[in-house]
Amino acid sequence: MDSFSFYNPTRILFGAGAIRHLGQEMNNAGVKKCLLVAGGGSIKTNGIYEQVIQSLKTSQIEWTEAWGVQVNPTLDKVREMIAQAQKEKVDAVLAVGGGSVIDSSKAVAAGFYLDDVWQAFLGKAVVKEALPLFAVLTISATGSEMNGNSVITNTTERRKWSLRSPLLYPKVSVIDPSVQSSLPFQQTVNGALDAMAHILEYYFMDDKALATLAMNSALLRTIMDMTDRLRQDPADFVARGNLAWSATLALNGISGIGLKGGDWACHAIEHAFSALYPKIAHGEGLGVVFPAWIEYVSEKQPERFVPWAKNVWGADSVSHALRRFRDMIASWGSATNLRDLGIRESDLATLRDIILDTRGVGKIVKFSADEIDALLMLAF
Amino acid sequence: MDSFSFYNPTRILFGAGAIRHLGQEMNNAGVKKCLLVAGGGSIKTNGIYEQVIQSLKTSQIEWTEAWGVQVNPTLDKVREMIAQAQKEKVDAVLAVGGGSVIDSSKAVAAGFYLDDVWQAFLGKAVVKEALPLFAVLTISATGSEMNGNSVITNTTERRKWSLRSPLLYPKVSVIDPSVQSSLPFQQTVNGALDAMAHILEYYFMDDKALATLAMNSALLRTIMDMTDRLRQDPADFVARGNLAWSATLALNGISGIGLKGGDWACHAIEHAFSALYPKIAHGEGLGVVFPAWIEYVSEKQPERFVPWAKNVWGADSVSHALRRFRDMIASWGSATNLRDLGIRESDLATLRDIILDTRGVGKIVKFSADEIDALLMLAF
Repeated sequence: MDSFSFYNPTRILFGAGAIRHLGQEMNNAGVKKCLLVAGGGSIKTNGIYEQVIQSLKTSQIEWTEAWGVQVNPTLDKVREMIAQAQKEKVDAVLAVGGGSVIDSSKAVAAGFYLDDVWQAFLGKAVVKEALPLFAVLTISATGSEMNGNSVITNTTERRKWSLRSPLLYPKVSVIDPSVQSSLPFQQTVNGALDAMAHILEYYFMDDKALATLAMNSALLRTIMDMTDRLRQDPADFVARGNLAWSATLALNGISGIGLKGGDWACHAIEHAFSALYPKIAHGEGLGVVFPAWIEYVSEKQPERFVPWAKNVWGADSVSHALRRFRDMIASWGSATNLRDLGIRESDLATLRDIILDTRGVGKIVKFSADEIDALLMLAF
Repeated sequence: MDSFSFYNPTRILFGAGAIRHLGQEMNNAGVKKCLLVAGGGSIKTNGIYEQVIQSLKTSQIEWTEAWGVQVNPTLDKVREMIAQAQKEKVDAVLAVGGGSVIDSSKAVAAGFYLDDVWQAFLGKAVVKEALPLFAVLTISATGSEMNGNSVITNTTERRKWSLRSPLLYPKVSVIDPSVQSSLPFQQTVNGALDAMAHILEYYFMDDKALATLAMNSALLRTIMDMTDRLRQDPADFVARGNLAWSATLALNGISGIGLKGGDWACHAIEHAFSALYPKIAHGEGLGVVFPAWIEYVSEKQPERFVPWAKNVWGADSVSHALRRFRDMIASWGSATNLRDLGIRESDLATLRDIILDTRGVGKIVKFSADEIDALLMLAF
């Protein structure tokens, strides 16, 4: 097993009703006034907003609200919120939402102390300080609630890039799976596919990280089983809770131990989709890209995929496992090719150029322009 | 899945040669002078001591040494080391050893600020402050390198009791699996059995924590596979690394998520063995107690053990799984009954009384005096 360092200081409060402890946790951390970051307003209809406000009031924490973070969150919105945070002199950021809201909040937490936060995403500025971040998760998917990563889209530059810093781990994240019971099934699926993709980005990197791979197989099977259960019964609280926790573990560091930092070709490719078609859900896009990537790479390196076929799918061949993977995605009503996602063939060349603009595409196969063209055609 | 909170701030540095980073980490934490706690001297023959000292010197950290911590570490030794730490005015504790050394170091870190550290073990004093703790692990077993627990034996009172505090998580733990290559196989087995027992204490508590149980099954299988590999080849570095990391995960909080705090009857029982026979290795004792406990409890509640039989052993019955469990322990050359451990039948009543002295024995079955007698006879 490869050398690694592991550090994850985020405190998780998990369970029905856990939001009520939020204010006390912020109090313990000395917070006086926070920027409450949120999305389009669904938290006002499902009762989450009210629970959060009640907890802040009980602990006498002031807040100012920033609404309107969208899927594939933008740099423009982040900049607007940084200005608000500075003007309102907050001393913390409170994200109430899914991955987009938490990622935007991380960018605000870092950008509060930077001249231009985008320079940090470009690797030209270093995050040396950040506002403390708290999160209330409303959809399990990105794992952002327990890591130090942020992914933001610069619409002008058509770049969806990421920033990592140990200063951006949330201090406390609240995960109440019961608030996810009202999610449409397609959003649950998008979250499940995103979580599975995080594990899969690591899975094929090194067959010697046996402890991690055994756990990753267990997590993949759990995510699939729980999603199937939720298709039958969206109110299945056991399935909702186990899916939520699996999604957090999928990208909190544990799933990547000994796996060389992961491959991340599929994420680089899907991020290009989002940059050009902002309405494509990240998880659904990954559900198209990953099977295509496995098909493409396993033709060159079939042995690499045998343990996955066996331990995740109980399959005796990679092609059999791949067929079951695609059937499962189709059974969930999710896209299985680029056309389903609404991507036009005439845009494939532009997509390839956006993909090539990222800092390297993949490790197992380092994709050239021609290889990206071939992969995109396979996915189309 | 039950509600839970999770928090584990220990930084892990894992891999061959990782000890060289220790001094820098202590420097980063502002340490000037530490108490170096160690066991009987094996670290001087296998090169670990030299690596540690070199790293301290490079980072200009002073130290004073406390040697002689033994298996089933004693309160007397802890008190002696607290006095040394206070006299030498150290500002940190550095544990270089296995679970006994790390547990003793935690007791020193807490006791540095207490009138009588044993009062904290009795639950009559609260740990409000502790010296920062650093650890270099030399045998993977107890998981103490990544949790806030300490188990110490009060020889006079014949009590082997534990203390838990969030202040006792090591700041940094170094795990270099290559230094464990020289361990006798029986010590490797003791460590593996201890790690397995930690997972098993949680395993049977609630069948709804599906994500955790799937990971726990994966970890149990990995620990067994890696131990088998090390029986064949003690220098198998892949097996050594995966066993080491699995043992850490077995008691760093992850394996207990959603599992009601664990049962811990077997640990309470084995701790009584150690209190009366200090030379019994904790892991070997657990290897006798756990199969007996499963046999005893599964006669009353067979359904509870079916997922374990199926998912860990691929067995269609609990009795079949139990037979394989015992065969495996025997194949490793470890004790399978109390007589093998050197326990006399005439001591069973005394053992029962020591066991009853602990704060409750078990949750799935809360053992009465008669039930303990029955279980001990089964194990005898």
